[in-house]
Amino acid sequence: MSVITIERKVLEKNDQIAQRNRQFFMERGIIVLNLVSSPGAGKTSILERTFQELRGAMRMAVIEGDVQTDLDAQRVARYDVPVVQIVTLGGCHLEANLVRDALDKLNLSGVELLFIENVGNLVCPSSYDLGEAVKVVVLSTTEGDDKPLKYPAMFRNSSVLLLNKIDLLPYVNCDLTVLKNNALKINPGLRIFEMSCVTGAGFPEWCGWLRNKDVSGL
Amino acid sequence: MSVITIERKVLEKNDQIAQRNRQFFMERGIIVLNLVSSPGAGKTSILERTFQELRGAMRMAVIEGDVQTDLDAQRVARYDVPVVQIVTLGGCHLEANLVRDALDKLNLSGVELLFIENVGNLVCPSSYDLGEAVKVVVLSTTEGDDKPLKYPAMFRNSSVLLLNKIDLLPYVNCDLTVLKNNALKINPGLRIFEMSCVTGAGFPEWCGWLRNKDVSGL
Repeated sequence: MSVITIERKVLEKNDQIAQRNRQFFMERGIIVLNLVSSPGAGKTSILERTFQELRGAMRMAVIEGDVQTDLDAQRVARYDVPVVQIVTLGGCHLEANLVRDALDKLNLSGVELLFIENVGNLVCPSSYDLGEAVKVVVLSTTEGDDKPLKYPAMFRNSSVLLLNKIDLLPYVNCDLTVLKNNALKINPGLRIFEMSCVTGAGFPEWCGWLRNKDVSGL
Repeated sequence: MSVITIERKVLEKNDQIAQRNRQFFMERGIIVLNLVSSPGAGKTSILERTFQELRGAMRMAVIEGDVQTDLDAQRVARYDVPVVQIVTLGGCHLEANLVRDALDKLNLSGVELLFIENVGNLVCPSSYDLGEAVKVVVLSTTEGDDKPLKYPAMFRNSSVLLLNKIDLLPYVNCDLTVLKNNALKINPGLRIFEMSCVTGAGFPEWCGWLRNKDVSGL
């Protein structure tokens, strides 16, 4: 078995715009969460249930990022939160200037929490700061317990890990302890919530954490 | 709800090298399959079971592509097939020159089938021809039935769809008919196999298809 290793330039051109976005959010007291994951890990389902749980308690808005379609924006629009869809037409991640442009189209009056649902991709979005307060990586149990080791940048650059689909643990080849240890090996500071959109597990803790705005302490 | 659309340049710089790779493979009678999917869809598990089923019947080799670690190469090396690991160190897809360099390190004597397991990413690898005969997209039922519509390029550019983890259908929110219709809407020519690495479903058909080298007729 041979191993070949290739260097990679990290693109940082959008950091300046991201910094201006961050300033914009801080001046308005808006906490911004950048949700990243593989396709199908459950970002939209988590948002839907979060909107249900926090309805009336907090004002929220969402920017949806997708390669194609506005299916996710249609889903979250049912919960009566302001939403803008960014369609990247093949682009594999969101960049700070797309978020900046989306802000013009979003009613942010009174909004306390802004969720940005990134393109489903466990690689590229890790390199692009959007101006968020916190990057939240969603990983489902069906993806296997080795993923933090295989995609370390995303877990290193995130502050929160939502371990989703824990209701499927009896049926999949995934050891939750191994998974959490692998994640903490990459990033010992990760705040981990174990969630299920089917049973509702983890939502009281996750939504309580959002409500307390503990996010600003990260 | 507002929609913003962004144009994207498709990078095609590696097509020339891919064409030379293709020539190399054709001269040697090696059928090359480029396996693409989200992280955790089951590419490596499918390869492991395929090696078991075809052991003795066909000579096979594999090039493993990963962002980090050689965990996948370690897994497939147990099946006594020649393997080279490419570690992209953050790179989100394989390119034709990496495959060309890997060929130097691989014993291809008598090899009939060469599998290239791409980086787990349902976006970027769709744009990069490696010189393969056929692109095979793996999608697991746990990812949801909307994924072909949301990541159309991968399904448009693939000739075969391996629908994996069908054993989990009773537990997940995924309609197999809707999923297949969505995939065929994007690419009516897709050859679809319904698979499970747990029950072995679909492997007789998939391995029979490989053994007959019907792939060359695609």
